[in-house]
Amino acid sequence: MENACPKLSDKTCFEEVSIMTRIAIDAMGGDHAPREIVKGAIWAALDYGIPIELVGKADEIKAEIDKIQKNGIKSLRGGYFSHSIKVDLSKLDVIITHADEVIEMGEAVGQAIRKKKKSSIVLTVDAVAQGRSDAVVAAGSTGAAMASSLFGLGRLKGIERPAICVTLPSVKEPFVLLDAGANSSCTPEMLCQFAIMGATFVKNVYDRSNPSVGILNIGEEAGKGNELVQTAYKMLQENEQGINFIGNVEGKEIFHGNCDVIICDGFTGNVALKIIEGSSLMLFEMIKEEFNSNIISKIIGLLAKPFMKRIYKRINYEEFGGALLLGVKGITVIAHGRSTAYAIKNAVRVAKEAVETGVNKKIAEFFQ
Amino acid sequence: MENACPKLSDKTCFEEVSIMTRIAIDAMGGDHAPREIVKGAIWAALDYGIPIELVGKADEIKAEIDKIQKNGIKSLRGGYFSHSIKVDLSKLDVIITHADEVIEMGEAVGQAIRKKKKSSIVLTVDAVAQGRSDAVVAAGSTGAAMASSLFGLGRLKGIERPAICVTLPSVKEPFVLLDAGANSSCTPEMLCQFAIMGATFVKNVYDRSNPSVGILNIGEEAGKGNELVQTAYKMLQENEQGINFIGNVEGKEIFHGNCDVIICDGFTGNVALKIIEGSSLMLFEMIKEEFNSNIISKIIGLLAKPFMKRIYKRINYEEFGGALLLGVKGITVIAHGRSTAYAIKNAVRVAKEAVETGVNKKIAEFFQ
Repeated sequence: MENACPKLSDKTCFEEVSIMTRIAIDAMGGDHAPREIVKGAIWAALDYGIPIELVGKADEIKAEIDKIQKNGIKSLRGGYFSHSIKVDLSKLDVIITHADEVIEMGEAVGQAIRKKKKSSIVLTVDAVAQGRSDAVVAAGSTGAAMASSLFGLGRLKGIERPAICVTLPSVKEPFVLLDAGANSSCTPEMLCQFAIMGATFVKNVYDRSNPSVGILNIGEEAGKGNELVQTAYKMLQENEQGINFIGNVEGKEIFHGNCDVIICDGFTGNVALKIIEGSSLMLFEMIKEEFNSNIISKIIGLLAKPFMKRIYKRINYEEFGGALLLGVKGITVIAHGRSTAYAIKNAVRVAKEAVETGVNKKIAEFFQ
Repeated sequence: MENACPKLSDKTCFEEVSIMTRIAIDAMGGDHAPREIVKGAIWAALDYGIPIELVGKADEIKAEIDKIQKNGIKSLRGGYFSHSIKVDLSKLDVIITHADEVIEMGEAVGQAIRKKKKSSIVLTVDAVAQGRSDAVVAAGSTGAAMASSLFGLGRLKGIERPAICVTLPSVKEPFVLLDAGANSSCTPEMLCQFAIMGATFVKNVYDRSNPSVGILNIGEEAGKGNELVQTAYKMLQENEQGINFIGNVEGKEIFHGNCDVIICDGFTGNVALKIIEGSSLMLFEMIKEEFNSNIISKIIGLLAKPFMKRIYKRINYEEFGGALLLGVKGITVIAHGRSTAYAIKNAVRVAKEAVETGVNKKIAEFFQ
């Protein structure tokens, strides 16, 4: 099978005149790939009216597309309700780029990228590097997505290491946290770069002026925490780049929604991210358990369901779509490994917004 | 006013023949001190039938006790329901030790302990050092409680640094996490000592045989994470002390309840602890908000309240009472800064259990 742009129904490659944001998606990455990824991609093409490039095993992707053509898109949303959409593929601008290989979860990333040059994630990044698409969406191995983006797209000038920027819920507006796992060891300089990237992201994508930046720490006072955060604190306090640094923020305070950008090393950030997810899931598990305990509780549970659904929507990672890898010359959105079609659709939205608001250009301007 | 054992109603010092566990409580520490602390102390004396030593400004403590004698104990429990108990103080074994000073939150700990030798926390630890009481309960400055315990009681042999051991909820049984904030920087050797202390605690206090120990990490595979956890992983894998090491555990997995003891450095642990608290509070905040949105939702909210209360009870820090400072020659329980009387009562229970199960003796045996 040819590698570049095989036909999808009666469509060939993207129309050459297209000025719309084009998203390349690794169709093989994630626990529910390719099924949910392809569904999410088609759904995104439909909702946002943008061209999509699906990268992966062409026959498997085709099979999924055939199913969609026959049955429409049926998707679980937040585990709570299903969504059914009919799709007229002839109106969508979707192409398939065949990839022979897949980098599996848990593979040694460096080696896998060098060996599997025709893997779906490497070719997805390639689609952006070659200018055929504008952004990458990937739900497979986070390490592979990071490494192939860094290798295939390169670092932005002035950025030591890219960081994963994740959007999280608060009682007010969502905030971003970075690094959520790209670098398990960091320097204070890197934290300062995270501050600039995070603030630029929030300013442009969330349209907030003068976003506040805080260091995730174990106390509010200056001098709290380990050497890394103590040094970063001093550097940010004296910053002349116009960062609105508000000091240290404790783990329980981040959810108050008073700080737009929380910075930390990737080890702490990844632990934090997964703990937020885990503790929320535990609570919902407990709620389900309580409401399932007898017939009366089941009835009350049914009555309470719409409220629970609304809360779940406010905190559900599927709504936030995916984390942005900031600091590479291109847009890469890393979606959750368990991504459903709905999560992928939203990840495409995140990628589209990042492209259209020119986040990378703004970050690059900072370091010039 | 004299420093040692002033009279409380018709009682003098602890009865000399008492073989019961005696708990010394810093009555001045915590956001709601001395009111909630004194209430919690009396409540504990009543419920567990044990002698209590209240340390702090004697006139303020006396005033609180007078109120209790008059009105009984009314206490908020988990912000949800109140509890009212009549108290016959003549039947309780409660003494007051006067302390002139209080170490306030945010004071530089080292300096404060050296300067304020007659502060409530220093004298509370002193009560244990002198053998008048068996354990410390303190809800004030964590740093001050740690430092005065380390200074006043000394380190257990073989322990480099004490660690804060906190009990957390899971969908199954609770688990412990340490270090939850005593050491913002750690060595791999320290993590191994935390493993031994945590396992000994769970084995003896929670009566679980062969408790499993895992490292809090950003991935399950060996080789994941920063240098600290990578080295600790290797050391624990080769351990000959009989630690049941099960490898790395991710942030979201800890709530599955499959690992009894989670170890990490104090920076990560403290961030984790506060994020668990913060994200749970956010969820309950959202639930309240949703149920308060209109008259129908309020009615459904009222029906759902008993279930929510049960869940809150399962995750509420007040139930767990307090964190244990493991590694010092004595028992120190650090209660939450916002401790209510109910939390203090439970912190006393934790202290009592730790004394009676001889956790420290068992830890010391490991290192001999």
